[in-house]
This record gives sequence, structure tokens and C-alpha cells, in this order.
Amino acid sequence: MNGGLIQRLIDALRILPGVGPKSAQRMAYALLERQRDGAQRLVRVLQQALDEVGHCAECRNLTEQPICSICASAQRHGSQLCVVETPADVLSIEQAGIYKGKYFVLMGHLSPIDGIGPAQLGLDLLQQRLAQAEVEELILATNPTVEGEATAHYIQQLAQAAGKRVTRLAQGLPMGGELEYVDSATLSQAFSARRSV
Amino acid sequence: MNGGLIQRLIDALRILPGVGPKSAQRMAYALLERQRDGAQRLVRVLQQALDEVGHCAECRNLTEQPICSICASAQRHGSQLCVVETPADVLSIEQAGIYKGKYFVLMGHLSPIDGIGPAQLGLDLLQQRLAQAEVEELILATNPTVEGEATAHYIQQLAQAAGKRVTRLAQGLPMGGELEYVDSATLSQAFSARRSV
Repeated sequence: MNGGLIQRLIDALRILPGVGPKSAQRMAYALLERQRDGAQRLVRVLQQALDEVGHCAECRNLTEQPICSICASAQRHGSQLCVVETPADVLSIEQAGIYKGKYFVLMGHLSPIDGIGPAQLGLDLLQQRLAQAEVEELILATNPTVEGEATAHYIQQLAQAAGKRVTRLAQGLPMGGELEYVDSATLSQAFSARRSV
Repeated sequence: MNGGLIQRLIDALRILPGVGPKSAQRMAYALLERQRDGAQRLVRVLQQALDEVGHCAECRNLTEQPICSICASAQRHGSQLCVVETPADVLSIEQAGIYKGKYFVLMGHLSPIDGIGPAQLGLDLLQQRLAQAEVEELILATNPTVEGEATAHYIQQLAQAAGKRVTRLAQGLPMGGELEYVDSATLSQAFSARRSV
């Protein structure tokens, strides 16, 4: 009924993660009915972000600068390098506020089936970073999934070949979780990595 | 950390209904990381929709044409006029496939507190429609909420003053619902409007 343009807008909105046909329809009508100013701002900001946001030349994180603010900061010490899969992971760690080193963002994980190998993850750039004397410790903070573990294992070998200390984020029971509801893989990991107190 | 532009994109995405800070962040990264083509298409289609989509001169529904496809259709009979609150309501009724008349879209409901009175709902245009001899029945299909009921009551008076037959969508138990979980307002409505079988 609504002619082509509104339907095309609904279809275009469906690329957003977690947005199905019904939400996309609701969004399209909200944008056209009540949020025209906001929609116009969204068009402008999204276009500008698409034009200007690229990857940091040092850590590959998304940034509109040639070097991102963390890599450029004199407050962050370069002796630690934390390897994560995505920019959202950097944000999570920054929000926790416990880490003052620098990052390296893979923008994914090794996945040969999807054609994602060491080159796509910028591991040549990571090797250049590892060759710098400044870096003392490489912290593996990839996701505790099969692909994340495989990627971590690969990077661990690179880092050890470069003679760096390698650490991995601790795995075990999440804080505030209840034992009863923890999955068995996490529980067996928590058992085998139990510590003397 | 991420500089201003990515944060501004996240803020701009939050105008979408049902999108909080975390979803907006996820959307922004998805658009910039994996969905650049889709994002570019979204920018283009949204800008075009903002420029071209307006209101149908007859029914006030959103359309990119001067007159929407339903009002322009010779297949729809003009003897019935169904009054709904939003374009999404039109879509729902069309999907049910039971109605072959025309629509009038209020684009909201009476809400004096928000400054939404008869003029904002285009009731002058509705009165012009009601003055046409063609229209025989006005079907009130506003939401069964306090505001929707008040709006329906107001429009009912306009239509009766114009000498038209006025009907209201039936209220009662939803199909497939279970009595146990139906709210008491719906249940008492279903009781008082019970029918002989």
C-alpha cells in the first residue's frame, strides 16, 4: 500500500543488528512522523561518520583521526598491549576503568571459512608492534569462544616468538553469578583454574 | 575515547524507538564495521524519504504521492471510512485483508496536554470527507485506550452531526487468548457486550 519509498526505508533499516520487520516498520514510521529533525540529524551524522571514520594506524580501532585518542595519549603506557576483537570490547574495558595500557583491535577473529586470516586481522601490524622494545606484555582479551581461543593461541605464538610476556584474561565464575545457573564449561574451567587462598 | 563523531552517531541512533545506549552503540559499530554499503543505502533512502514522503491530501496517511494508493484506488469503495490513529494501524488492517473501504489517519489522538487538538488531527479535513454524500458509514478504529476512546467519542459526534452511520470496532476477548490471562477491563467489557448465540 505505502508505495515503494516507505517500504524501501523499512528494508534499509533492517541492516541494523537486532531489527526485524516489525521494529523496522515502527522505526520508519517514527522517523517520518515524529522524529523528522532527529532523522535529518541521523542522516547527516551517519554520512559524516561513513566519510570520516577509519581505522587507527596503530591499533586499528575505529576513529576519525589518523591515530586514535588512546594511542595518542601520553597517559597510557605502551608497555602493555591488550588484544581485543572489536571496538565495543575496548569500550567495555575502558568503562571498567582498570586498564591503562594500549590496545590492538583485531576487528574480528580468525575464521578461515569466511576468508578471515591473519592478514584481515592486521597481524602484520601487530607483529610490527611486538617488534618494538617498548611493549613488554601482551594481554590476550579475545572472547572465550572457540574462534576467540584459536585466535588467541595464534597470537600467543607470535608474541612468544617476539620474546614477549603473554597473559590471558582469567576465566571462571562471573561476579554476581549463581553457581546453579553457570554453564558446565565455565564451571569446569573454574574448577581446573582454582587458586589457593 | 572514540572521539566525538562515533559518539554523535550513537546519540543520533537513540531517536529510534526502543533503542537504548547499548543497542545504539552496537548499531553504530555494526554500521561502521560491517555494513558500510547498507549504511550508505540507509542514508540515501532516509534522506529521500524525508524529502519526498508527506501526507495524503485525502486521508493524511504517509505517502510519497499527493494521493496515497488506497485513496487513489478504484477498487476501494468510498462508502466506508475507517478512522485510525497511525499509518501502522492502516498496515495492520490491510494485512488482515478484511476491509475494502477507505481510511482516515489522524496521526495521533486528542491530547490537550501535549497541545494536540482537533486541528492537529486534521478533523476539519475529516469533516469535509463526512460532508460528501459518498460516505455512508464511519468506522471508529482508534486504540481502545483512554485517549483513543476520547478521540473516538469526539469524532462520533462530528459524524452523527453529519448524519452518518457510526460504528466502532468490537471489544472483547482476543482470539487465541486465555481467559485466565485476560485483564479485568477486557473481561468486564466482554461480559457487558456479550451476545446471544
